[in-house]
Amino acid sequence: MQGNFTYHNPTKLYFGEEAISHLSNELKNYGPTVMLSYGGGSIKRNGIYDAVLAALKEAGKTVVENPGVMPNPTYEKVLEGCGLVRQHHVDLILAVGGGSTIDYAKAVSASAFCQEDPWDKYWVHQGWPSCPVVPIGAVLTMVGTGSEMNGGSVITNRKAGFKLGKVFGPDLFPKFTILNPRFTMTVPQYQMVAGFFDIMSHLMEQYFAGNADCTTDYLIEGLMRSLVHSSRIAAQNPQDYEARANIMWTATWALNTLLKCGKGGDWEVHQIGHAIGLVTDATHGMTLASVSLPYYRLVMHDGLHQFVRFAQNVWNVRPDGKTDEQVATEGLACLESWMKEIGLVTHSRELGVTEENIPAIADAVLILPVGYRTLTRDEVVSILRQSL
Amino acid sequence: MQGNFTYHNPTKLYFGEEAISHLSNELKNYGPTVMLSYGGGSIKRNGIYDAVLAALKEAGKTVVENPGVMPNPTYEKVLEGCGLVRQHHVDLILAVGGGSTIDYAKAVSASAFCQEDPWDKYWVHQGWPSCPVVPIGAVLTMVGTGSEMNGGSVITNRKAGFKLGKVFGPDLFPKFTILNPRFTMTVPQYQMVAGFFDIMSHLMEQYFAGNADCTTDYLIEGLMRSLVHSSRIAAQNPQDYEARANIMWTATWALNTLLKCGKGGDWEVHQIGHAIGLVTDATHGMTLASVSLPYYRLVMHDGLHQFVRFAQNVWNVRPDGKTDEQVATEGLACLESWMKEIGLVTHSRELGVTEENIPAIADAVLILPVGYRTLTRDEVVSILRQSL
Repeated sequence: MQGNFTYHNPTKLYFGEEAISHLSNELKNYGPTVMLSYGGGSIKRNGIYDAVLAALKEAGKTVVENPGVMPNPTYEKVLEGCGLVRQHHVDLILAVGGGSTIDYAKAVSASAFCQEDPWDKYWVHQGWPSCPVVPIGAVLTMVGTGSEMNGGSVITNRKAGFKLGKVFGPDLFPKFTILNPRFTMTVPQYQMVAGFFDIMSHLMEQYFAGNADCTTDYLIEGLMRSLVHSSRIAAQNPQDYEARANIMWTATWALNTLLKCGKGGDWEVHQIGHAIGLVTDATHGMTLASVSLPYYRLVMHDGLHQFVRFAQNVWNVRPDGKTDEQVATEGLACLESWMKEIGLVTHSRELGVTEENIPAIADAVLILPVGYRTLTRDEVVSILRQSL
Repeated sequence: MQGNFTYHNPTKLYFGEEAISHLSNELKNYGPTVMLSYGGGSIKRNGIYDAVLAALKEAGKTVVENPGVMPNPTYEKVLEGCGLVRQHHVDLILAVGGGSTIDYAKAVSASAFCQEDPWDKYWVHQGWPSCPVVPIGAVLTMVGTGSEMNGGSVITNRKAGFKLGKVFGPDLFPKFTILNPRFTMTVPQYQMVAGFFDIMSHLMEQYFAGNADCTTDYLIEGLMRSLVHSSRIAAQNPQDYEARANIMWTATWALNTLLKCGKGGDWEVHQIGHAIGLVTDATHGMTLASVSLPYYRLVMHDGLHQFVRFAQNVWNVRPDGKTDEQVATEGLACLESWMKEIGLVTHSRELGVTEENIPAIADAVLILPVGYRTLTRDEVVSILRQSL
């Protein structure tokens, strides 16, 4: 646990099959007008919309409808939400959906009363809000991003040519989140397993970076083992409540600011994934899956000790009579087998990446000077080529 | 992750060698009068008292001195603190010390304005405060109890003949805690390793209970592995900052309400330990250490699957060609070796327990109807005899 850090995560989590029963009571802590932000309408088909609306009605709220939040939420959509917040004097933004919807709610919250250009201030220059922000609540319907208990907000600006993340502080964390594992069961299998890899990627981005042998490493190994165990069950039987519940909890703790304490992170796989998402609009978790194996096989040599540990502690690779390189390589082979077993994309061409659009993707990759190795553009291109 | 639960932990943690630099700024969030609660004066010798007083002065606070909080804080001392809070209109209780001091601060906070008999209401009947409570802040100087980020408050009432714990809700959690690993380095080796076992006991109490294969099990295994790793280093070299920092972080997460989510707990070892503490006034962690091996060897047969898992995942016991009983027994032998290696008491006679006072201790043990097995009084006596 190196360096000095502050941990403060005030988000209140209601977990379980009856979690939504707390919603109307929780809503009473906020003013009369609630903006209901959600995606393409699937929540209307599976009953979640009705349950949320009943709670809003029970709490006596005026509802401002804000549907149509897309999987990779755009800055244009954010500005539309800001207009609604100002026009209706919204007291709470209730995001019902996956990470995209919650990321979007944070972006709207911080931008609605921002006196400067929000894109420039927050996503380009990573500044902090100096304006009032609107409180956020969430009802999670898809696991993966961890947005339900953190300040992360990834927004796509097609005009600027970037998909960028901003991490806001605790004021922008959801005040409360409803986590009902059953709400995640209507997500199609492809989206479900993509979310599973998003979780694994959050864990790997934080594991393969910074100082080793800190408590965080052990926590991450525990979460990885839990994810591998439960994802195998869920991939076979998506209706297994216990498996889905464990995965939901793992996802929340994989990226709620706990694991970065005293350890740091890498986040280069996410940068490459964001660039693929910008160019192809592919599902976030699958973009990460498609480039992780070539990325980690490249940086393995720079953090060999940690890759050996990963092999032994997460995948039970026995080191007897093997070199460190062999143990580490075997660990990554186990990762690959698991990915294939649960149905993840391991080739970016399945997402629409071609030899021709690799230069455009490489141009959109933000190269971070952290982690075991700062990539060169040539290395980014090479990873993308190997991912095909 | 079974059942429905709420997780809400708003405590803000400042961690690291410079953590106390945040104190004066943090104090500005509270009113003018601060009661400074601490123990026997060791903080005056090691400079922590001066550093805290400088921050209080910088923040312009009026300080109400409340020294002399004892290792097993008594109800009489709690009532003394309540009088000071009422007399001086205290706005914040700042507890500087280990878990006892913070437990004490919570007891004073909840009791100062309580209209009923606090002992009866909170510790006997486990009721909730209906009166105003005083905010608490903490500067931790000894790790183990986790009191710095939870609502736990263990108080000894000699007149009533009980040492009992009460778990308050988030309103009684410290609003903030300063966690500087260096502040824990002046604690004598005996107290230090006692704290290490307190952590291990918190982990085991939550691990050996409830449903298995939930994410919590994997988190606990991670924290156990981290503790074993770092405690071996710290026992050899108590000045190893990284080891002490990892242990401090492990202690906080071992008992800050995260691990009980979706899992439950046992807590019978703590009940037996509390009873030994009541009769002998021995150090809390050592009372737990002295009875854990006979306790777990008894309940091993009732939770065999989990003891097998403990052996393999925490102690790397290889199961090849062994029965489950053999694997589980080997795991507990590894636990015993580690305890001896770091210098823990494994015989209660070292704490003043004798054949003669076993009946008095057994009478003071609260038998909880949870965990793998509800003990009989005869089993409590048998565990105490074996612990000698």
